[in-house]
Amino acid sequence: MHVFLPDGKQLDLPEHATALDAAKAIGPRLAQDALAATANGVLTDLVTPLPEGAEISLITKKNPGQAQSVFRHSLAHTMSQAVGEYYGRKGFPKEAVKRGVGPSIENGFYQDFDLPEPLREEDLPDVEAIMREIIGRNLDITRADVGKAAALEQFSYDPYKVELISELPDDEPITFYTQGDYVDLCRGPHFPSTGKLPTAFKLTSTSGAYWRGNEKNPILQRIYGVAFASQKELDEYLERLEEAKKRDHRKLGRELELFTIDPLVGKGLPLWLPNGTVLREELTRFLREQQFQRGYQGVITPNIGNLELYKVSGHYQNYSDSNFSPITVDDEQYMLKPMNCPHHVRIYAAKPRSYRDLPVRLAEFGTVYRYEQSGELNGLTRVRGFTQDDAHIFCRPDQLKTEFLNVLDLTVLVLKTFGMNDVRFRVGTRDEGGDKYVGSDENWTAAEAQIIEAVSEVGLPYSIEPGDAAFYGPKLDFVVRDVIGREWQLGTIQVDYNLPERFDISYTGEDGQEHRPVMIHRAPFGSLERFVGILIEHYGGDFPLWLAPRQIAIIPIADRHNAYAEELRAELHAAGLRAEVDGSSNRMNAKVRQAELSKIPVMLIVGDKEQEERAVSVRERTPEGHKERKGVGFGDLKTELLERYQTRA
Amino acid sequence: MHVFLPDGKQLDLPEHATALDAAKAIGPRLAQDALAATANGVLTDLVTPLPEGAEISLITKKNPGQAQSVFRHSLAHTMSQAVGEYYGRKGFPKEAVKRGVGPSIENGFYQDFDLPEPLREEDLPDVEAIMREIIGRNLDITRADVGKAAALEQFSYDPYKVELISELPDDEPITFYTQGDYVDLCRGPHFPSTGKLPTAFKLTSTSGAYWRGNEKNPILQRIYGVAFASQKELDEYLERLEEAKKRDHRKLGRELELFTIDPLVGKGLPLWLPNGTVLREELTRFLREQQFQRGYQGVITPNIGNLELYKVSGHYQNYSDSNFSPITVDDEQYMLKPMNCPHHVRIYAAKPRSYRDLPVRLAEFGTVYRYEQSGELNGLTRVRGFTQDDAHIFCRPDQLKTEFLNVLDLTVLVLKTFGMNDVRFRVGTRDEGGDKYVGSDENWTAAEAQIIEAVSEVGLPYSIEPGDAAFYGPKLDFVVRDVIGREWQLGTIQVDYNLPERFDISYTGEDGQEHRPVMIHRAPFGSLERFVGILIEHYGGDFPLWLAPRQIAIIPIADRHNAYAEELRAELHAAGLRAEVDGSSNRMNAKVRQAELSKIPVMLIVGDKEQEERAVSVRERTPEGHKERKGVGFGDLKTELLERYQTRA
Repeated sequence: MHVFLPDGKQLDLPEHATALDAAKAIGPRLAQDALAATANGVLTDLVTPLPEGAEISLITKKNPGQAQSVFRHSLAHTMSQAVGEYYGRKGFPKEAVKRGVGPSIENGFYQDFDLPEPLREEDLPDVEAIMREIIGRNLDITRADVGKAAALEQFSYDPYKVELISELPDDEPITFYTQGDYVDLCRGPHFPSTGKLPTAFKLTSTSGAYWRGNEKNPILQRIYGVAFASQKELDEYLERLEEAKKRDHRKLGRELELFTIDPLVGKGLPLWLPNGTVLREELTRFLREQQFQRGYQGVITPNIGNLELYKVSGHYQNYSDSNFSPITVDDEQYMLKPMNCPHHVRIYAAKPRSYRDLPVRLAEFGTVYRYEQSGELNGLTRVRGFTQDDAHIFCRPDQLKTEFLNVLDLTVLVLKTFGMNDVRFRVGTRDEGGDKYVGSDENWTAAEAQIIEAVSEVGLPYSIEPGDAAFYGPKLDFVVRDVIGREWQLGTIQVDYNLPERFDISYTGEDGQEHRPVMIHRAPFGSLERFVGILIEHYGGDFPLWLAPRQIAIIPIADRHNAYAEELRAELHAAGLRAEVDGSSNRMNAKVRQAELSKIPVMLIVGDKEQEERAVSVRERTPEGHKERKGVGFGDLKTELLERYQTRA
Repeated sequence: MHVFLPDGKQLDLPEHATALDAAKAIGPRLAQDALAATANGVLTDLVTPLPEGAEISLITKKNPGQAQSVFRHSLAHTMSQAVGEYYGRKGFPKEAVKRGVGPSIENGFYQDFDLPEPLREEDLPDVEAIMREIIGRNLDITRADVGKAAALEQFSYDPYKVELISELPDDEPITFYTQGDYVDLCRGPHFPSTGKLPTAFKLTSTSGAYWRGNEKNPILQRIYGVAFASQKELDEYLERLEEAKKRDHRKLGRELELFTIDPLVGKGLPLWLPNGTVLREELTRFLREQQFQRGYQGVITPNIGNLELYKVSGHYQNYSDSNFSPITVDDEQYMLKPMNCPHHVRIYAAKPRSYRDLPVRLAEFGTVYRYEQSGELNGLTRVRGFTQDDAHIFCRPDQLKTEFLNVLDLTVLVLKTFGMNDVRFRVGTRDEGGDKYVGSDENWTAAEAQIIEAVSEVGLPYSIEPGDAAFYGPKLDFVVRDVIGREWQLGTIQVDYNLPERFDISYTGEDGQEHRPVMIHRAPFGSLERFVGILIEHYGGDFPLWLAPRQIAIIPIADRHNAYAEELRAELHAAGLRAEVDGSSNRMNAKVRQAELSKIPVMLIVGDKEQEERAVSVRERTPEGHKERKGVGFGDLKTELLERYQTRA
């Protein structure tokens, strides 16, 4: 047989040759350093026969990161072996440890176990230590094919393996990987020996997982690990994880009293507490102002609609998984609205429209309800009821590019206002030759061209994703990267030729004829729930002044300054600022610490001197720590704070 | 027998004497002038035997208005007779006209008919003319008792009368009233003769009405009339009616494009069009500002809730008629929320509360859904989905009066802001000896006293209505009279001892013990839908500047002023004002008329002179007509308008 090297050179090898054979053919040093390989771009290991004529490339210890999923998988085996030894040392026979699956995953790996007694989180370091021992033993990792009967025999003690093996074809060999006395049913690929595995790993947690994901099956114990090619990468990852935990919007949502989810009210239905409500209303006010300036018109529509409406729109038929069950009213059926669009289309249709009236931009902070499985629900980011910052633009085909640019401009402004400067766009276009699309070819071609033109004028990175269009029109998603490097998909902008058709809406053209308008769906935030969830993590709860639910803490140094503090509070409050006095009997430092924990951005400290001069000492949180100013006149400070609040500086 | 006169004098009369006998006993002149009477305060006629020992008072032609319901009832008979003659003149036999009921109602009367051919609205004057003929004939109206068999015999041709007679007891005489050849089954009372009936009446309309109000029965034709003791009263009433028609919020809602109701979206579910949305958002913004100043905290809760929540609150059991059918989600049931209170109670309960934290005032513009029969639905004032300007105050019992006063103060401010100065309060207290009430006697007594104290301090008229309390606490309704004299019941303020108990909420008192807070429910607008409906009628669509959906029309005199007009528009718009340019090719007068029809309060007319001087001519609508100012500098005007907008002047 023969294979090709990256430089195009052909390498002749004996039949059933592996990547190790190829490495040896090139040179002994390479054979020594090789860890894994790719064949036709797919990761493989050194002990698996190569496909005839494959383009191969060897991965060595110089760049083990290229084989992340391979060493993570081998580490799963190593953990599995270590768990066996751990229970062996406790006196359990080898057969007492039974195993589910154990794949590599993003950042690491896991393995499911049926254990003779549960492994506690505090036992993980012991298991980790045994893993390092196994690595120290530098066991060869070998591959072997066996017949089905022998395989069933070998794992007769483990019902999970038996179940998996039984489902394999009778006449094909079954692959096993072996390291030392540990053998596992596995397709590979793996590193050549445990001694070559990276030591930059850590077992992080355990959880329960149903065997084969089915809740009718027994629950196995899943042990998670993370692993990287270098300690630096692992440390960075763990730090990001730690930071993400601190910023978890569910944790901060509880600590800062932003929202709560109450099972008695309902799953996936957040209750916005006063502090969270302030956040949400500031966002709403901000966007409403922007929309007013850009010629949007507000509308308000009910949270339910007649089923007939959703049959006309197609939502009833096409999204039945996410629809809530119907509500019977007299001889009619209603449904919680899953989308605002049909309502807005009916508002468009409520009066005759002329080409001069277009574009019509209808905006609503519309609360919609969509079913999600209870296991999928997550804080504010995955809910069953949410409020979209929705708008629908009805325009003439010749207005599409301008309107699209306006929407992009608004979107970028919105994101920059929140310091989300790392933004990229994905333009979803048709598949070539796809036939699932609604609307004329001519319209699609023109719309795709206009959108791409518009996006390229914005000057931000974008990619074109053929086949990612909705069936009813091309679309644009925007993705932001937050301060700790995570990417979030926010809202979308979608062109729609379908709903105007289904609802048969029109406008009278300059030619006196009826024409079909194009619709644009857009939501810069996406949903207020999800956006606030992301904002909480993005800011880590340290909101800028204009967004902060609690803006100003006034801290009297002693009781005798309470009245002065209260006077300042009342004046700030009357001006529309959110100020409060810490009138507790705590000492000043404790009050400052309390305000910091509550993430109040501005503290005004008042004592004798301040009171005499009608002044304050200002202490503000900054990214670096804090900034202090003493003896600032209260009048000036109020003006400054109001200005910063109003300009969202 | 004997009766007593108003001056206390006893009058001895023969057995079964009537009011006419009494009048005759006093004097022939009185017998001549008498129209009706009261016996023990109840209206009766001159031909019905008086109860033994009754206090009686005669009503004469000097004050016929005291017997309004009597002459309205007699006019219903007279109309019924006239309709019979009308069809008789068309050649139909007497038996062709069959009759349902015909009572007196507020402002007039109606009678239901099963007619051989429908009566059209344009036929009503002919019927009215025959009524006046019958009055001219001065027929005596007499009363007779007959046996059931004879009654059935007499009306054998009329299935409706037969049905009514059949249901009467067999052994009691049945009363008939007769005028000329017209006889009707009737309990009375009536005027003594048709010649004494007032002529200040008018037949106003016809409609369909199910026999006995049951939609399974045939539809009868109902003819309505209005009637008063004097022509002046009738004229005033018709004028008010005309004015009310012009102000009908459904008509203005359509003409000013404020809202629409679309059967495809759903009955009783208004769609707020852009202009109506502006109104609603201005109201919301106004109240939100006031609430911020008064220490309320905003919250936002979902539009559905778990059925268990409403079982705990009692809404599920106690308001089943107005609940929508449940929605099944996995193994749970949910319901459209009929009230926000249970959600707010759960927010209160979401963390421990101390006596120092109270009062907690949670406010939400919360959209709720309640079933109403489709026949009851009416524009914005009777709907199935509406948004309450809801708040719940959780306070200590000793804070009740202060909180109640705060709420009253806010309510009065709200109403005065809309020029609703004619306000009265109704305080609903317990029945004496009632046992349907929740909560301790002590609490009730204290709460009633505190509310009455608070109301009396406000200095507006109020009445105490024993028995009008809710079962869970005393309440206060406020009633406003609008510019055309109609009374509207707006929101209520209710004290609640029940929900705190049912949800077992508490606060830690100064004594370290757990105590039960008191709840106040309040909504100054009641609901945004109903309040906007009333506001539209109250203002007749002529909203003050701050509320007007379209505030400023800029009218260029000729095309060459369009650019200048657009420049001004952009500047006003950027400042947050709602301005538009009439760029049509119409002449100036037509543009002014158009703006007046659209009820835009401020017009800025710009021509050569204005453009040169960067000025405008201002034309404003006033209650008297309009006010003009020429050559006003644009900068000054903008400042003035912004100031008026922001101060809601």
